[in-house]
Parts: sequence; C-alpha cells; structure tokens
Amino acid sequence: MGSVSPNLTRRGFLRSVGVSGGAGALFATMGALGLAPTEAQAAPPFKAPGPSDFTLTGRSAKKVVILGGGIAGLTTAYELGKAGYHCTVLEARSRTGGRNFTVRGGTEQTDLDGHTQRARFSEGIYMNAGPARIAQWMVTMDYCRELGVPVEVFTNQNASAFIYNESAGMTPGNPVRYRTAKADVNGYVSELLAKATDQGALDARLTADDKSRLLSFLQSFGSIGNKTSGYAYTGTEHRGFVTDPGAGNDAGVVLGPPPSLSDVFASNVGRYFSFEFGYDQAMLMFQPIGGMDQIPKALTRAIGAHRVELGAVVTGLTNSAAGVEVTYTQNGKERRVKADYCVATMPPHLIARIPHNLGADVTAALSGFRVTNVGKIGLEYRSRWWETDYKIFGGITETDMDLQHIWYPSYGHLGERGLIIGYYNTGNAANVYSALSPVEREARAVAQGVKIHGEKYRTELAHSFSIAWHRTPYLEGGWVSPTYSSPGYQLLLRPAGRVYFAGDWLSHSVAWQHGAFVSARAAVTALHQRVMTG
Amino acid sequence: MGSVSPNLTRRGFLRSVGVSGGAGALFATMGALGLAPTEAQAAPPFKAPGPSDFTLTGRSAKKVVILGGGIAGLTTAYELGKAGYHCTVLEARSRTGGRNFTVRGGTEQTDLDGHTQRARFSEGIYMNAGPARIAQWMVTMDYCRELGVPVEVFTNQNASAFIYNESAGMTPGNPVRYRTAKADVNGYVSELLAKATDQGALDARLTADDKSRLLSFLQSFGSIGNKTSGYAYTGTEHRGFVTDPGAGNDAGVVLGPPPSLSDVFASNVGRYFSFEFGYDQAMLMFQPIGGMDQIPKALTRAIGAHRVELGAVVTGLTNSAAGVEVTYTQNGKERRVKADYCVATMPPHLIARIPHNLGADVTAALSGFRVTNVGKIGLEYRSRWWETDYKIFGGITETDMDLQHIWYPSYGHLGERGLIIGYYNTGNAANVYSALSPVEREARAVAQGVKIHGEKYRTELAHSFSIAWHRTPYLEGGWVSPTYSSPGYQLLLRPAGRVYFAGDWLSHSVAWQHGAFVSARAAVTALHQRVMTG
Repeated sequence: MGSVSPNLTRRGFLRSVGVSGGAGALFATMGALGLAPTEAQAAPPFKAPGPSDFTLTGRSAKKVVILGGGIAGLTTAYELGKAGYHCTVLEARSRTGGRNFTVRGGTEQTDLDGHTQRARFSEGIYMNAGPARIAQWMVTMDYCRELGVPVEVFTNQNASAFIYNESAGMTPGNPVRYRTAKADVNGYVSELLAKATDQGALDARLTADDKSRLLSFLQSFGSIGNKTSGYAYTGTEHRGFVTDPGAGNDAGVVLGPPPSLSDVFASNVGRYFSFEFGYDQAMLMFQPIGGMDQIPKALTRAIGAHRVELGAVVTGLTNSAAGVEVTYTQNGKERRVKADYCVATMPPHLIARIPHNLGADVTAALSGFRVTNVGKIGLEYRSRWWETDYKIFGGITETDMDLQHIWYPSYGHLGERGLIIGYYNTGNAANVYSALSPVEREARAVAQGVKIHGEKYRTELAHSFSIAWHRTPYLEGGWVSPTYSSPGYQLLLRPAGRVYFAGDWLSHSVAWQHGAFVSARAAVTALHQRVMTG
Repeated sequence: MGSVSPNLTRRGFLRSVGVSGGAGALFATMGALGLAPTEAQAAPPFKAPGPSDFTLTGRSAKKVVILGGGIAGLTTAYELGKAGYHCTVLEARSRTGGRNFTVRGGTEQTDLDGHTQRARFSEGIYMNAGPARIAQWMVTMDYCRELGVPVEVFTNQNASAFIYNESAGMTPGNPVRYRTAKADVNGYVSELLAKATDQGALDARLTADDKSRLLSFLQSFGSIGNKTSGYAYTGTEHRGFVTDPGAGNDAGVVLGPPPSLSDVFASNVGRYFSFEFGYDQAMLMFQPIGGMDQIPKALTRAIGAHRVELGAVVTGLTNSAAGVEVTYTQNGKERRVKADYCVATMPPHLIARIPHNLGADVTAALSGFRVTNVGKIGLEYRSRWWETDYKIFGGITETDMDLQHIWYPSYGHLGERGLIIGYYNTGNAANVYSALSPVEREARAVAQGVKIHGEKYRTELAHSFSIAWHRTPYLEGGWVSPTYSSPGYQLLLRPAGRVYFAGDWLSHSVAWQHGAFVSARAAVTALHQRVMTG
C-alpha cells in the first residue's frame, strides 16, 4: 500500500491500515495505539490444524464424532481432517448439507405433517430451498475457492423488479418498478431537503460550503430542478421508459409524470430501500453454479464419504472423563460410536431432545433460543415470461402480501424454462402457508403472484415444490437466534465435558452459512488447542 | 393480467397496460384515449422480413451491399437474410464486430500512431475493449436469445468497490468503500431532512401524514436516531465492518465513527450515486459468457461467413437510378460489387471520406457530428488480489483521476488470474493516455491504481493491452453523437438514392449496441418496405 502520510488523522490511518492490510494488520496497529477491541470482539484469524501438529509433537490424532452433517458439521470434519483426526459424521437425513438443500427433479421429502412431495422439476432446473446467497466478505466464498466450487452472481437487487404494497392501496396489475420508486422517493427527498436548505432552515447545522455542496448533490441524486424552479421534482428518466429509446427520431417515452409527493410516501415503497445497504445483503452477492448444495457435496467429497453415516438418527449422548459415546439408529438397527470428543452441530432445540448426561442447564440453554419459522416455494414455469414480457433477469420483487418476496432466478437466463421462488417468508406469513397442503400453498402463492404479473403467473406454471422448514424432520426451524448476552449462550460456547457445540446459532451470522463455518472453525480451534495442550 | 379496476386513474390504467401488455398494448390503449405520442416518438415493433414476403408476391430478393461489419452491418445482413436478400458485407478489418472487440492472447492491433500491440493474455483471460455491458431492456438481450448467446451478470455496481476523489483531498491508501460513502451521505441527508421536517420548515409542502411517513422512511433509509437524539446520524453497520461478524462473542467491529457532515460532503463521494439510477446503467446488467464478441461471431455464423468480405477497404460508392456500385481493395487488389441497394454502417465521419456521388450535403451531415475519444486498458494479474485481499468480486471503483474508472472482472471469480480494466476514460483523460506509448499507458494506469490498491497493483501485474478508439484504424472514435434536431441528422435518416445509413449514431442509444441493432432494424424496415412497394 502506498506511503502513509504522517499528518493523517488516527482514524484515517486506521482505516487505511484496515483497507490495505486486512484485519490482522489493523489489529496489530490498533494494539500498538492502545485501541484494540477486547479479545471477545476480535478473534484471531483461523488457522486450520495441520498434520505436523501431531507428527512434530508425538501426539496421535484423536477420534471425533460429529452430530449433524450440515455446513457446521461437515466443516468440523473437514478442518479436523486436515490434521488427521478420525471423524465420523452422523446425519439423520439421506444427504449431507442440512438446510443447504437444493431441490431438483426427483427430490422427495415428507414433512412432519405427513405431506410427501416429489419434485418434478425439469432437467437443469433447481431450487435452493435453504441458503441461496453469499455476501462477498463471507468465509463461504473462501470455502468455495478452497473447495473448487465455482460461483456466479446472485441477483439480490434489480431496478426492474417490482414493489407491490397492497396495504398502501396498490391494486392488482399496478405494481411499481423498483427504479421508479427510487426515482420518485429520491426526487421528493431531494426537493424537500433542497428547499429547506435554500430557505436557511438548516443554517445552524450547515456552513455555506456545506449548503452549496449539498444542493449540488441533491440536484444530481434527485434529478430535481434548479433554484428558480423551487428545486421541484417533476420526474426523470430514472423512472424508466414506457417505450425504450430507439432508432432515428424514436427517443423513447419516459414513464411519467410522477405521482404526487403525498402519494409516493403513502405508497410506502421506501420501506424496502435500506435492504440493499445491509452488510449481509448488499450487491454483489454470489451463488455456486449449479445449486447451493455444491458446497456440502464438495465438503463431503473432501472429508471422504465413508466418514459420513447417513440415515443416522442420534438417540443418546454420554459424556465421560474417558470419552464420549453416541448411540444412533440406522436402517432400523441400533448402533453406537465411541470417540474422544463430540461436536454437536444439530439445531440446538433438537440436541436438547437427545437423552444425554450433559446436565439440565445445557438442556435449558439448548432449548432456550428463538426458532424462526420459514417457508419457500419453487415455481417452475414453462417459459421465462418475466424475461420476455417484463425484461426482468433476476432480482427480487418485494410485497406486503404474505408471500413477502418473489425471487426471479439468477441462472438460466434466456433459456426455455425457469424457476421462480414464489414465496420466501418467515413468522406468521410462513405459518399461514405451512398450515396448507402443498397444493394449496401453490394455489395461494400463484393467486398472489397474479396480482403482480397477471395470468401468465398461473397459466405458464409447470411444477412446484414447497418447504416449511419448521415442519421439516431433523431441522424443525428456519434458523435459531440466540440471546448473545444470556448465560445459556455463554454456556454453550464452552464444551460440556468432551462435547462441543457449533452452528450458525452460535455465531453473529445466524441464518447464514458464514455463521456455520466460523462457528465450526471456533469449535475446531478450541478442540484442537485442548488436544495439543492436553 | 388480473382484472382492471374500473376506478383506476387514467395514468394508473395506462401504467397497468404498459406493465402487462408491453408497448403494443400500451399504444393501442393510448391511441384509444387520444394520448398516443407522435409517430416519430413511437416506432412500431420490428417485424423481420420473411421469405414469404417475396414468394407470396412474386418478387425476387434484391442484392444489398453493406459497408461495415460491426453490429449494425451484421444485423442488417442478418435481418435481410431472413427474407432471402443477397447480402455482401464489406469489412475493412480482419474480423467482424467493429467496436465489439474482445482481446485475447494473440490478438494483434496496430494503431494510427504506429504502435503495434500483441496481447499476451493467458488462456481464458479476455478484455472487452469496446462494449462490455447490456441493460436488461435492450434488444441486445433479444438478439442473444435468438442467436443462442448465453449471458451472465455484468457487475456494474458493487457496494464493496471504492471511491477515490483525489481533488477532494483523499490521500493514497485512503479510498472509501461505496457502501461507506452511501451510508454516510444517506445518513446525513436523512438527519438534515428529518430535522427540517420536524421543525416545521416544510409545513407548506407536507401534510401531517406526509411528515410522519417521511420521518419513518428517513429513519430506515439513513439509519438515524430518533426525535430525542435530534435524528442524529452517528454511523451504522451499513458503513461496513473492520472485522466481520464471527463466531461466539465475535460480533465484528463496525467501521466508524463516520466523518463529520462537512467532511462527507466535501469528499464529493455523492457525485457517483446517480450513475446506478440510469436507465442504461442500473443493475442488473449482462454480458455474454466468454466475451462480448460472441455476439458478432454468432451473427456472422447466422449470416454465413461467405457473405462477409474481410480486409475489404471501401474506396468508392456510386449511386445511380439502376443500383449502387461499391469499389474496394482487398489483399492489394481492386474489387467492385454491384447491388440494388447499399446500407452504409461505418462510422459517419469515415463514410464521409469515401469518394461518392451522394452530394455535398450528405458529406457535410456525415462529418458534422461530435466524435468522442475513448480509451481502455486491460491489466492481467497473476492473482485475484482484489478478491482475496479486498473481497471485491466485480464492480467498478470510481475516481477523479484520469483513469476515471477501474473495472473488476465479471467473470472468473475465485480463479487464479484475472483481468482488471485499469482505465476506461473519455475526452481529455482519454487523450492524455492515447498520447502515450502502450508501455507508458500501463505505467500511468498502474501508478494511479496503486493509490487505491497499493503495491500489489504493480507487483502482481502480468500483461496489459490498451486501446485508443480514436486512434484505431477504420473506427477513429469511441462513438459519434449526432445532433438530433439538426437537418443533417434528419437527412441521414432518409436514404440517399439507394444508399441507406445505419449505426448507433443514428439512434437514441449512442455508444450502445442497442442503438446499432435498432438503427439496423430501421434501415432494414425502410429498405424492405421500398422493395415491397416498388
């Protein structure tokens, strides 16, 4: 990184170091300046256990049994495996990945209410039923690199997608494009702030230079008029076109005029704007090419499939001074595995139900967190009408209906068929759908989608597959949110005897694979440190 | 589309029709309401000539000579070819595509100043030296569909990319992430407008409902405090993190605190924000997988390579009542081709130089438009340090240096090597670079890039290839902008005898392939109509 000017402010200097040198350099510098955050805040960079850790110290690799073959469990086995640990992963389902679940034609699942669905999706069509997007900063990207999982952009925002707020008076057939909503909100916000600034209402807060720079910014940001016009917002090409610019004298026809200021704010379109500023949601985002389950598949290959017991339902967990013993059923048989350590990565409320001897406080902690109900439906269409008719190639339409979000696919552009996520909802909205049969869910999702996209949303539909994570065996929830300050959370961050816990529910990235990865790394680090110092 | 409520406003109704039925339905409706724009504004949808146009009317297909094998020329041949026209495309360069030019290892080019470059890019590395992005609404997407050219997202915006405004006092090593700049500008804008609103400064413009809704929006949009705090902006997670959220008690460290309001507006970061609202620049955008030249390659295949004469430099054009005659040199030989019609699609100022008999007014019109100078450099790096060190997977860093923009690649994520566009500039900035030798251009671009990314920008560099479009034979410009209201522009929209003109310079999408496509369609439509009514 270029030379650092001596007269930089301390903050500017820190930012410079943070940008150029990564967290390690930043913390070294902050430490030197007496500014380092507490250890609890700043974990050291992860260092995977290595084979020389054992060979150079005369130690032998230990045996570890891992409960749950989701991202946290697989990562635990993968990282421990680098040093030669003998890992066994017990996974109740017939596949690894946990909530990382990609549904394709032939995928079958029976939920806790007895609904059996078998996806009839066409060749090449898939639905990421669980995690579906990765932010650039997440370690998930590092694992994709390390495991050779190629990625492509996940289209998390699209100016051409729609907003549809029924409760704010929008009517069927009249959704608003994101680009139009932004132009109007930005326009009126800019008009208002320019007026107030120009009239001196903010003189206590703004210098003359501030005012001049602010007005210049607002004119660009909001496409508003000049001082003479009262900085009026009267529309802009940013709203979009009803006919696109063409040849010759065909300049296109800009969509306009804009609704009134009162109508724009009453439509409540702005409620969605901050989503894309989120550190975890801002573009650019990514997905593995071919389905999110390329990640657990690659992890499973790297671990060695022989180390993973599928269909293994854990029935008991006993911790002792000498080791751990786990009992499970598999193919109707009772089995048991003994190991030096255990890492439990199943959803906490399900670990709590396993008969164990870890104590009532552990059980209480495991079952004390908030479980979020989550649903999704994949709708396969015979044509990609959203591309041909609406020029929407990916992205998300936001609604206040209980379908909540419609996701257009981030793959297969310009192809014949495609799959829309027809709802992705949580809480009460998810409950409304999970109370229905799969056929009824499809009907409800389609009836709501028709309000935005018209009858093709119904007539072009080929197949659907829906999931209610809170009604899915061995998962029973979309995600689990701990109370970070609770004694229970702190308890589970420590091993219960020889049993460690890991999962996104033990991280500050709940519901993200990143959380599962970093939690697994933390468990691996703690376990390995114990082995190396034991 | 769902039923249309009878009490919709007229505008709401039109928007509904426009959304659901496409432009055709919209204009039918507008016509019925007496609202249709003039014919000049609203071109009818393009209908390609078909073989039955001739077979059903006893006409025979005509012969057409097309000057220039760029997008406009190829499209002309492609669309006319659908009806059986006998087309010959004369292209001076050794490849089709014109400015649609993808540079790969082995690509060689000599510019008008005698600089010869031979790209040494590695296998799989390419540089789109000309057009590089496609908006969803552009007919370019339709041609990709029709021609079977697969596309992927072009990463036109990235919250993790940087802004670096040297003239506003930013110093080397201290660029600001886009996400941070947005958080701070949005935060202070929201704080200011909330204060003014709350203090009644805008009561003449806002109802009580407006005020309440506006304040609610601003708190979400700007992440500002509540009324008690004076709606103060004091930072937000939207700024980014210096260490990312992790496991256990590692909540991450938010980047902060924000600079002062005065510093934020003085930094002038907001000048870039409206770019992403542009109808032609808003995400999502796309690129052909494997290089933009997949489009001209597919067009050339569809036309039939035997219809394209490469290395054919036009030396004369004669229009007569009976037909057109074009002379050209090829492999040192004088050649001539006779045809019923000609479509001239070369850059207008180059057509103007061809000896012809179309009249002085045509020459004047062709040479009367503004030519923009444009430069680009591709920098191949041995590692994708922007991904590993900065977590930037695509997007654009904006600067006020004369490199103007740095583009991170939209393909090859997580791979070994990658290619950055080290400058993409126009006007004076392009002239500064084109005055240099290719080696000097690389050195200047790298010296500027180091200010943002540090020494790896220099030390990891493997190869470069630069282009100055205004110094490139047979093109001599980045793009040509007509004056739409000028008599010259209107003149060239009509045929000069049997000679038609086409190109993005005869459209309202100058510098976009969309403009070339729609202009070619317009020429095809006019020519075919003449043939069918002649």
